[in-house]
Amino acid sequence: MRSIRTDLAAEARDFAPEASGVRHQVSEDSIVSVTRVFIDTEQGALALGKPVGEYITLDAPRLMERDTDVFSRVAGELSSAIRSILEKKSVKRVDAVMVVGLGNRAVTADSLGPKVVEKTLVTRHLYEFMPEQANSRMRPVCAFAPGVLGVTGMETGEMVQSIAKRIRPRLVIAIDALASRSTERLGTSIQLADTGIHPGSGLGGKRAGLNEETLGVPVLAVGVPLVVHASTLSRDAVSLLIQRNGGLKDEEEEEKLLSLVDEVVSEKIGPLVVTPKEIDVIVSDLASLIAKGVNLALHELEPDEIEQFMS
Amino acid sequence: MRSIRTDLAAEARDFAPEASGVRHQVSEDSIVSVTRVFIDTEQGALALGKPVGEYITLDAPRLMERDTDVFSRVAGELSSAIRSILEKKSVKRVDAVMVVGLGNRAVTADSLGPKVVEKTLVTRHLYEFMPEQANSRMRPVCAFAPGVLGVTGMETGEMVQSIAKRIRPRLVIAIDALASRSTERLGTSIQLADTGIHPGSGLGGKRAGLNEETLGVPVLAVGVPLVVHASTLSRDAVSLLIQRNGGLKDEEEEEKLLSLVDEVVSEKIGPLVVTPKEIDVIVSDLASLIAKGVNLALHELEPDEIEQFMS
Amino acid sequence: MRSIRTDLAAEARDFAPEASGVRHQVSEDSIVSVTRVFIDTEQGALALGKPVGEYITLDAPRLMERDTDVFSRVAGELSSAIRSILEKKSVKRVDAVMVVGLGNRAVTADSLGPKVVEKTLVTRHLYEFMPEQANSRMRPVCAFAPGVLGVTGMETGEMVQSIAKRIRPRLVIAIDALASRSTERLGTSIQLADTGIHPGSGLGGKRAGLNEETLGVPVLAVGVPLVVHASTLSRDAVSLLIQRNGGLKDEEEEEKLLSLVDEVVSEKIGPLVVTPKEIDVIVSDLASLIAKGVNLALHELEPDEIEQFMS
Amino acid sequence: MRSIRTDLAAEARDFAPEASGVRHQVSEDSIVSVTRVFIDTEQGALALGKPVGEYITLDAPRLMERDTDVFSRVAGELSSAIRSILEKKSVKRVDAVMVVGLGNRAVTADSLGPKVVEKTLVTRHLYEFMPEQANSRMRPVCAFAPGVLGVTGMETGEMVQSIAKRIRPRLVIAIDALASRSTERLGTSIQLADTGIHPGSGLGGKRAGLNEETLGVPVLAVGVPLVVHASTLSRDAVSLLIQRNGGLKDEEEEEKLLSLVDEVVSEKIGPLVVTPKEIDVIVSDLASLIAKGVNLALHELEPDEIEQFMS
Repeated sequence: MRSIRTDLAAEARDFAPEASGVRHQVSEDSIVSVTRVFIDTEQGALALGKPVGEYITLDAPRLMERDTDVFSRVAGELSSAIRSILEKKSVKRVDAVMVVGLGNRAVTADSLGPKVVEKTLVTRHLYEFMPEQANSRMRPVCAFAPGVLGVTGMETGEMVQSIAKRIRPRLVIAIDALASRSTERLGTSIQLADTGIHPGSGLGGKRAGLNEETLGVPVLAVGVPLVVHASTLSRDAVSLLIQRNGGLKDEEEEEKLLSLVDEVVSEKIGPLVVTPKEIDVIVSDLASLIAKGVNLALHELEPDEIEQFMS
Repeated sequence: MRSIRTDLAAEARDFAPEASGVRHQVSEDSIVSVTRVFIDTEQGALALGKPVGEYITLDAPRLMERDTDVFSRVAGELSSAIRSILEKKSVKRVDAVMVVGLGNRAVTADSLGPKVVEKTLVTRHLYEFMPEQANSRMRPVCAFAPGVLGVTGMETGEMVQSIAKRIRPRLVIAIDALASRSTERLGTSIQLADTGIHPGSGLGGKRAGLNEETLGVPVLAVGVPLVVHASTLSRDAVSLLIQRNGGLKDEEEEEKLLSLVDEVVSEKIGPLVVTPKEIDVIVSDLASLIAKGVNLALHELEPDEIEQFMS
Repeated sequence: MRSIRTDLAAEARDFAPEASGVRHQVSEDSIVSVTRVFIDTEQGALALGKPVGEYITLDAPRLMERDTDVFSRVAGELSSAIRSILEKKSVKRVDAVMVVGLGNRAVTADSLGPKVVEKTLVTRHLYEFMPEQANSRMRPVCAFAPGVLGVTGMETGEMVQSIAKRIRPRLVIAIDALASRSTERLGTSIQLADTGIHPGSGLGGKRAGLNEETLGVPVLAVGVPLVVHASTLSRDAVSLLIQRNGGLKDEEEEEKLLSLVDEVVSEKIGPLVVTPKEIDVIVSDLASLIAKGVNLALHELEPDEIEQFMS
Repeated sequence: MRSIRTDLAAEARDFAPEASGVRHQVSEDSIVSVTRVFIDTEQGALALGKPVGEYITLDAPRLMERDTDVFSRVAGELSSAIRSILEKKSVKRVDAVMVVGLGNRAVTADSLGPKVVEKTLVTRHLYEFMPEQANSRMRPVCAFAPGVLGVTGMETGEMVQSIAKRIRPRLVIAIDALASRSTERLGTSIQLADTGIHPGSGLGGKRAGLNEETLGVPVLAVGVPLVVHASTLSRDAVSLLIQRNGGLKDEEEEEKLLSLVDEVVSEKIGPLVVTPKEIDVIVSDLASLIAKGVNLALHELEPDEIEQFMS
């Protein structure tokens, strides 16, 4: 069976479109398409290589245009998607939520999580220390960026577990940069998974899982594909080439050819992971967008109220 | 009795030079003077407004010259001072140590702690994940920067306690920026306290304590005065003026005048906290220096080996 | 005669309120006061220690609250003030303007100029390379940050002169951080001078002038007080103390006392220049505010159009 | 004839190994190989698509290991290479040199030039303003980063020309990030060209040339490949695939296939330019290395003296 190397459920589904135990819905307009993949059974989980749960993918190629209307629109969709998960998990209007920004702030392509934390409207401390500033349209929100193993010497999982055990949020939102199987999705796609993060996902590879099993509360993972393996780019090119030439007769033969691509690339180019040249501005834009979506979902505040509180 | 508003034991002692239960030693050369203040009794603690314990202050006015030899020399003294505390606390060569960088990385004057964490040689993860890279001249070291209340919504104390409880280091080193009573010490003085950090210290004011009582293991606080209250500058000036004029007959009268300074300053200038204009480069230099001192103290490695591991 | 050590005409006037050849107007509301000082004659210039010209000072203490409405309001006033100078200097709607951001980007307190340049809507290149994106409501604007002598080895004046000679703008706007005589104005006051910058002004001290004489076109200087000498803080405190005690009988005696303050401070505290602890966020806010004022003044675009072009 | 899309002469030569009017020398050891390509005639220039001149390429794959010894070694080779060009151009020990850092400091992959400028030991101002600090083992060096068209509204060429005309250096060193044809050279190769920079080179594409013709003095270009086109990665993969399969019988057929790769990639993947995920640390390391090579070449100072002056 074909191995599916992607963090994105929407991509995984493309490889196994007829897997049983998997449903999906798509709604789209000229700016953003929203794909919901529901993995309902263990059989579906096996087929897609992902745990049972709900996966929402927002695709918005026009994010590359850096248009402020497009940003607002996608932030609104993200907020709705987060709210739908909060509701599904029976998180109430007043329940505390913890935002965790995964990744290495010193590596731009991996700094999305820490940057979202900086832009998250935290309020948990207001209830204890400045109750006059807390507002009935807020909820207690806390946020932190645990850093990465090579910088802290501690596993992200160990850190988040210890702090969540103490703070006892009702739900955790974990933000992370992802590796993509497709160059088209770089910086233009946002995936939510109500299953949290499972070992081996994300850029870090060896990370312990952050999920209901390890943290004791539901975890909503929010990720954006920001890097791609050089070998993925090469596979894409060869696939396109084959399609252009009318495809190969035998699907198995195509897969053999693509495996050969992986082999020569890993021999000659090595394990190169690449990111668009404009990664600085892409990450900065997306951190603002995701923080906006998170802030709008967690509080009942207007965008300009949030801006006011954040300044 | 006079109130002593300073984080520095060496400064506090100047105000109560004959307090009983307090000993001190000074050794100095042309580059750095090392003052050790030992508060031995509760009476001494009361007199100096600081808990019973050992306080080591390194003063090196020539740090302002930014000379690489001066940096090396002070880093060496810092390393010796840290080692003397490790020994006193019976921390063994192989015991794990956790470095905590306090403060807000987005405020340069408060970012010393997080910057030291970035330059600390962490090794704890090597023992588990890359044992071949761990070295008999190392010990397990982990490090993190918890952030500040306004950014995380969580108290530093809560975060450090939860993580220390999980990781179980044998000792914690907490790095922080301090407020100084004297403009002369800004950026040129490093204080160590084997008593850890007590509520109300440091720039944040309301911080919960980080000490043996709260964390269950000894805490070595390492701080550098990087800000000064505008009113301190004014008091200094008026004091100097009085001295120049032969002093006032009555010490009480002098204190009354200085209180008046505080009053008019707080009315007219407000609670302005200032920092030298060159704070960016001062913090950057000191973060390197302190990390060097910490790395040399915790591991049995040569400076260039450490540099090699850090790159 | 008293020496007036300030970059601000509004402050200088306070020291010489009845100088002949000097007029002033004040208009104010609850958010911002606008003081226009006109130095009409050489006698006035001598009295205030500033060249003949127009000086506009916007004071907005509420900028410290970081309220988005206050920012917008002050940006609007700044835009009007800049437009009044453009008109006075007969700069037409289509004439090219060059924005120069003075200061050292690596020193936060001195980085206002370079940061404004990053946020300036530049358009000059559109006319040549992308004429379809140029818009009849724009004018050709270019911008650059020359850096400082210690980093480039070249004088700011040499660099700006050479480039202005080549580019031939109709007017230059030079943005700079200033030293203030008053702690109250730190970060809350913006001064415009249609006389440009004269040697010895600003933080750098030795800078060559940037003015009509050296550049051949009018120069509008826009500056914000962001640092203060430690001795200024001390003088302020002693002055307040004297006032509180009913003042001294003899004004000369007061000045003698203040000179003594300068003397003891410079002996004991040295030439310390300080800035508020929160300088990072103050500079960031002001750079956005000033860029907004400049962009609104130079182009006939709405704020959200400018935001769109800048993203 | 095949089009050669590369900024690197060493790469261009690989495509036309037998071009007449082109000589080359290689010397190598276990750390760095030095390839000198001399284009002696117009015919050679035509064959390689580069002007007549000398091109030196340092290749050091081990730079990726981030070993301090490797950095020192490559900096030493770079310094020798720069000195050989200075000598060839009859630049004397006391002649002034200007270092120009090209690129956009806000885009990490394009910020190499500005970062080298920050680490260059500038001395030109000492001769005029602090002659006691100038040293007989120095020469007058100035440095600046002109920024990019989209940020300044001015062409780099216009700015450098105006300033060079005023400052009159004897030679200009222009530092730039390059696009590579080969993923292997990303971040591990440094190319020097005594012909300067010609229109269309570098990441910016449309840049005016910086060369003896436009500036009136010789220009030494120093560049490092830091980005690669997605289509290059794909071409590489397909080429490797063909080689693995024993090659195609017809070289023309191979080229046709590769053109097809370009076509499908540009249709489906678009003009994606990518950079390694670790670009932040790669650029930071290389900026230090190149500045070290430049400083050692321009002055007769020891490495630790330079460090001392720079701090």
